[in-house]
Order: sequence, then C-alpha cells, then structure tokens
Amino acid sequence: MKERYRLADRVDRLGVETAFLVAAHAAAHAAAGNRVFPFHLGDMNLATPPHIGEAACRALRAGKTGYTPSVGIPELREALAEDFRRTRGTSYTADHVAIQPGGKPVIAKFLLALMNPGDEVLYPNPGFPIYESQIQFHGGVAVPYGVVPGETNFTFDIDGLEASINERTRLLIVNDLHNPTSAECSAEDRRRIAELAVRHDLIVLLDEAYFDIHYDGRSTSIVSEPGMEERSVILYTFSKRFAMTGWRLGAALGPKEIISIIGKMNVNDESCANHFVQWAAVEALTGDQQPVQEILAELQRRRDCCVDLLNDIEGVTCYRPDATFYLWPDVTAAMANKGFTAYQAFLSTILQETGVSMCARSHFGTPLPGEDRFFLRLAYSGIGVDDIEEGLRRLKAFLEG
Amino acid sequence: MKERYRLADRVDRLGVETAFLVAAHAAAHAAAGNRVFPFHLGDMNLATPPHIGEAACRALRAGKTGYTPSVGIPELREALAEDFRRTRGTSYTADHVAIQPGGKPVIAKFLLALMNPGDEVLYPNPGFPIYESQIQFHGGVAVPYGVVPGETNFTFDIDGLEASINERTRLLIVNDLHNPTSAECSAEDRRRIAELAVRHDLIVLLDEAYFDIHYDGRSTSIVSEPGMEERSVILYTFSKRFAMTGWRLGAALGPKEIISIIGKMNVNDESCANHFVQWAAVEALTGDQQPVQEILAELQRRRDCCVDLLNDIEGVTCYRPDATFYLWPDVTAAMANKGFTAYQAFLSTILQETGVSMCARSHFGTPLPGEDRFFLRLAYSGIGVDDIEEGLRRLKAFLEG
Repeated sequence: MKERYRLADRVDRLGVETAFLVAAHAAAHAAAGNRVFPFHLGDMNLATPPHIGEAACRALRAGKTGYTPSVGIPELREALAEDFRRTRGTSYTADHVAIQPGGKPVIAKFLLALMNPGDEVLYPNPGFPIYESQIQFHGGVAVPYGVVPGETNFTFDIDGLEASINERTRLLIVNDLHNPTSAECSAEDRRRIAELAVRHDLIVLLDEAYFDIHYDGRSTSIVSEPGMEERSVILYTFSKRFAMTGWRLGAALGPKEIISIIGKMNVNDESCANHFVQWAAVEALTGDQQPVQEILAELQRRRDCCVDLLNDIEGVTCYRPDATFYLWPDVTAAMANKGFTAYQAFLSTILQETGVSMCARSHFGTPLPGEDRFFLRLAYSGIGVDDIEEGLRRLKAFLEG
Repeated sequence: MKERYRLADRVDRLGVETAFLVAAHAAAHAAAGNRVFPFHLGDMNLATPPHIGEAACRALRAGKTGYTPSVGIPELREALAEDFRRTRGTSYTADHVAIQPGGKPVIAKFLLALMNPGDEVLYPNPGFPIYESQIQFHGGVAVPYGVVPGETNFTFDIDGLEASINERTRLLIVNDLHNPTSAECSAEDRRRIAELAVRHDLIVLLDEAYFDIHYDGRSTSIVSEPGMEERSVILYTFSKRFAMTGWRLGAALGPKEIISIIGKMNVNDESCANHFVQWAAVEALTGDQQPVQEILAELQRRRDCCVDLLNDIEGVTCYRPDATFYLWPDVTAAMANKGFTAYQAFLSTILQETGVSMCARSHFGTPLPGEDRFFLRLAYSGIGVDDIEEGLRRLKAFLEG
C-alpha cells in the first residue's frame, strides 16, 4: 500500500523512538500474566504536585479555554525568563520565550528555522533518537559524536566532536545531562564546547530537558558561557522537573530573532499551547517548590538503590551520575558470561526469564566505529524502590546463574 | 540580525495568519480607551460546556498525567471513529485515527507525509492562510482555486480547480464549510470534486473544522463519496463544536497507511497530546450533547442578527450561510461610496471611527486574477448579540454617513 499513496521521499528518513518497541514487548509480556519491572520507561510514575493540577482546574473554570498568543501567555513567558535569569544567568525577557506543546517540538522547529538541506548537524550518539530522525527528515546531514567513559561518569567526546567540524557544519545539538548515559559536562567541557561553537560560528540547540533533575549541587548551562546566549536555543520542558510528562508543555528560549521565527511556526503548526495548562505552569514555576524537592528526593533514593544493586551483579559496572533518571551500565562481561553477542536476544531473554524490561545502546542510534563495549539503559523514573529491588534481584540471579 | 543567524531558506516562505495583525490593531485601539467590536476573531467567547471541563479535572486528579500512546488513548480514537461512522458513514476504526494537539498540526503532517518538493497542491483562495504557507514552506507549489458567488451562498470554483490540474498535481485541499466565505458544497459539487480526485489520483486533505457548526440540516462530507475514504485525510478539531479552542485538541483520520506515518510524526514532533484533555474529549463526544445544541443555537441567533443588519446597510450585501460562524459580505459599493480603494485604509478608518474590527479578503490570500469585488470577513463567534447590534449600527452610520 505504500506505493499506492506515493509517500513523500522524506518519509523514508523518518525515524522513531525504537524504545517504544521495548514498551510493546513489555506490555505483551504483562498481558500474558507476567510481572514486569519497567526500567525501559522515560515516563514517570510520580504524580504531578497537586497544587499544579488545582491551578489548571481553577484556570479552566475561570474560562481560560480560548486561544492564547501563539508564543504563550505573557505571564508564563515572563516567569520562565525569570527562572532562567536565576538558574542560568541569562538576560532573557519574555520576548526570548516561545511556549510549546512539549519540549520535543523545539527540535524540529530549531532545525526548520536554521538548517538548509545538506547542512551538517552534529548530534550525540548514543543519544535521543529524535535528533537524528529530524535532521535527516528535513534534509540535513546528521553527524554523530560519541559519549565515552570518564573517571566518575560518562563524558562527551569533545575531541571527536571537534574533529568532525568542517565548512558544512552549521548546527550543534548538545544534551548536557544526557539521555541515555547521564553524561554531564565539566566546567572545562562547557568552556570547550562554547569555544568551538563561537570559533566555528555554530548555532547550538541545548536540550536541557533534565537540567533540574540534579541531585548533588545544581546544573550549570552552556548558555552561561561567554558568547553562547546569542547562539543558543534552549529546549525547556515542564515534564521532568514537575512530573508533568503527559501535560505536554515546554518552551524554546533563545535570541529574539530565532524565537520570533519559532513563533511564526507556532502559528502554522498548532496555534498555541493549551491555555489552562499554561496557567498551571505559572503555578509550577512560581508556587510551592517543596513538592519538587520531594520528587528529586524520591528519584535519588531510586538511583542509589539501582546503582548499588547493579554494581553488585557480576559482570556489570555502573556509575552513580548526579543527574537525570537514567543509568547506562556496562554489561559487556555479563553478556559474555551468558553467551550473548547481540542486544535483542539478551533483552528478550531477560524479559522472559525475569520480567525486567530495559533498553539498550541499540535504541539510541547506530553504534559508532570502534565501540566495543555493551551498554543497557535503565530508567528509574517509572519504577519504585520495592520493584527496583525485586527486579534487580531477579536480574542478578539470571546473570549470575 | 537576520543575516547573523543565516536562517534556513524555507523561512522566507513561511507565512502567518495576517488576521493576527488585525487583532493587534484592535487591542491597541482598546488599550487607548476605545470600545472595540471584535468581529475579527476566529476564537469563541462561549464557555466550554462545564461537564467537559469537569471530566478533565477528574482525569487529572485520577493521575492521567503521564504520556499516552503517540496516536492517542484508545478510548478517544474509538469514540472518534464511532462519531465518524455515524456522521460520515466511514468504516474507520481506532487505527484510522491519530489524535493531535489541535486540528492545525494535520495540515503540516499531511503535506510532509505526501508532498515532495515541486509537487503541486491545489488549495482554496480566499482560504485559511496556513495552507499556502505550509505548502510553500515545505517546498511544494501552491496552486489556488477560487470561491465564487452562487445563488444563495458562495461556492467553490470547481471548473477553475479542474483547469488547474496537471501531471504535477498530487494533492488537493478542500475546506468544505469554508473559512472565510462559509461556502458549502452542494451534492453535485461533492460528486464532482470526488470524481476529479479519483480520476487524477489526488490525495485530498478535507479540512472539516466547521463540519459540526451547521444550523439547518446536517453537514455531508466529501469522504462519503465513492472512492474518497481511501484517498482522504480529514482534519478534525474539538475547537468549534465544543467551544474548546484553547484546549488544543484535534485529530487526523484517514487510511491506516497514512495515519501510521502521521503517528510516527507525532513521536517526532510532540510525543502525544495532553493526557487528561484526551479524557475530556471522550466526555465531549460521548456525554451530554445538549450544551452543544445550545452553542449552535446561540451562534445561529448571532448569524441572523449579523446578516439582517449587514443587509440593511447601503452598499453591503451578505448571504445567510447555513454553516461556520463567518460572513463574507460584498462591500464593493460601500467602499466606493466612501471613496476607498484599498482594504487597509478602509478597515483602519472603520476601526477608528466605529470601533468595529474586521478582516478582509486580503487576509486570506492574494486576490486571484479577475477578482473585482471587495469582501470583508466578519466572525460572530467572539461577539454577543448586543455588541453585534451596537457595532453594526455604528458601521451603518459610518458607511451611510
């Protein structure tokens, strides 16, 4: 039937999040009556703080059900600009903010605003698979850079990144506080990335979806480096910080000229984001922050539980990252012990034998030349401590059995 | 600064809804202390029926705040498929439905799925300005067809449409129940359009945003014509029927193969639509329909009031369309009487002198060769009967003075 509809050529270049296939397998396993331990989810099983929900209902009842300006209500744009002044030291005002129905729309809009067909765009691999999909879908050339083991955590391969820059390189995507590895830039990394961007006149998408999921100390943004505010577009989302994944609200922040183009795209693509949800987001940013601390404390308990149990499994080693809710254990030895040489058989055997559902390196881009270690991705945002303990106990029994 | 960022070439082809500029002028006039009669709005000043809002709050409190499948919750997809089986006679199931954050996203997704650069796409002009903008933004060739006066209402220029079809024509956009003219196809028109689509193997976007805003009798969809279900994608929105404009919820319905591609785009573009809003939409479709009847009755009162008063103005003639909430009066004689030859001066003088804010032909595409009449667009969705009466009384005094 594909020929029947003569789909556009670009459809062949459209990717998906293959992690959804993992979710489908897990759901099928559960539907067959089995217990599943959902470490594959990027979703959260934590409730949105109630005061945010009540703000949405109040706004709804107050008739906040008509269109808003395409870039969002002024109160939310201003609140977000203020949040960024405090957390990133930016000089943004409301004019630097375009509210979006989620953080994800910022990826396509950034590329559509700034990328011509044939332009090269640097993106992290392993990484969020939508970067590569959208670069290619809209006619760009996706050029990967790696994420490599460091002393206490994964780190971006900035040497590799630099080596890939050429005269066709126009854009750079950075996901500091990284999905899936939890890599986090050091101060020196941030300085180097900024220096490269300025030297090569790159415009940078800073995907900061996990900026506020930081356990020890606070995150620092690359936008705070000299020269970066004028060449960065930031992907912001309410999803993780406030446990609002299914609310679908985010924003693009950056230079007025680019934000104004993104605002025109809003007019074309979706008119505006939901009106009363925007008022709830004002409450999220300006209201009681104690529930946010509780979300972080719960995630930290889960992290510590996961990391301890993973490192207790023979053939598995795992860092204890300070941010995001993902772990990226090296399972090379464990796979070899069990005689597996490919992710798919490894994961589906684990699911069958233990109920533990996870993603792997292969769900986050095609492995780069020279990669010879095997990694899994565990998310602890959608699974409580009790299930973490039981699931990883079963995983240990299987891997060591 | 534009050069500074070397924006993508496609940005030069990105249009907006210039009606937003009318809204800005009206807002400035109001801010200066003047009374404004807002006939320019496509928004509604009617409240969403309360039972729909309460369903949203219930779902929110029940924790419906995580991600949904990218194409939407099964319950909503099924409810919409059932609604279409009843109102359009289609054989759609849930698999033929991809929920969207508004109706508008369907326009870009339809084009991105089916249009290659250089493909010709037929679209109505005057018409919703986003069609032309998105066709051109994504590299297609926008080919207009007109909307012309008929016996009792405007009608699509199907002869002109047919004459514009050539071997490069791939797609056709039809907005039966038309913004801005309220044109509505006759049974013969629907048959002719379907016959042309089948004969020339065109895939058709049926923008049915106003399908349920029908006063006398019910709407009939072109999708119900022979051969059309397999070659149509329908833009559906909850905005107008349920007074939910600012909720931002809609859907694409069509052949499974195309809907599946649109679902992949959902994964890339916004993950999914708001979770608890989807549950509210289930209530909208399956719950009490009495409030919907009241919305229609109120709109019909406004229509009759508007049409009567417009036709009572010298030099103005206006049909009484059975659908949408737009009027498209011919003001050629009135403009000539007042010595105006261009819309902009005419509209801003009217705003200054009377406070009446309206859009014009010029906000809905570049006039086609041969057009020699002048039209305004009045929306009565955002203004009550009392203000309609006062505003059009002032307009009459100005135009006849």
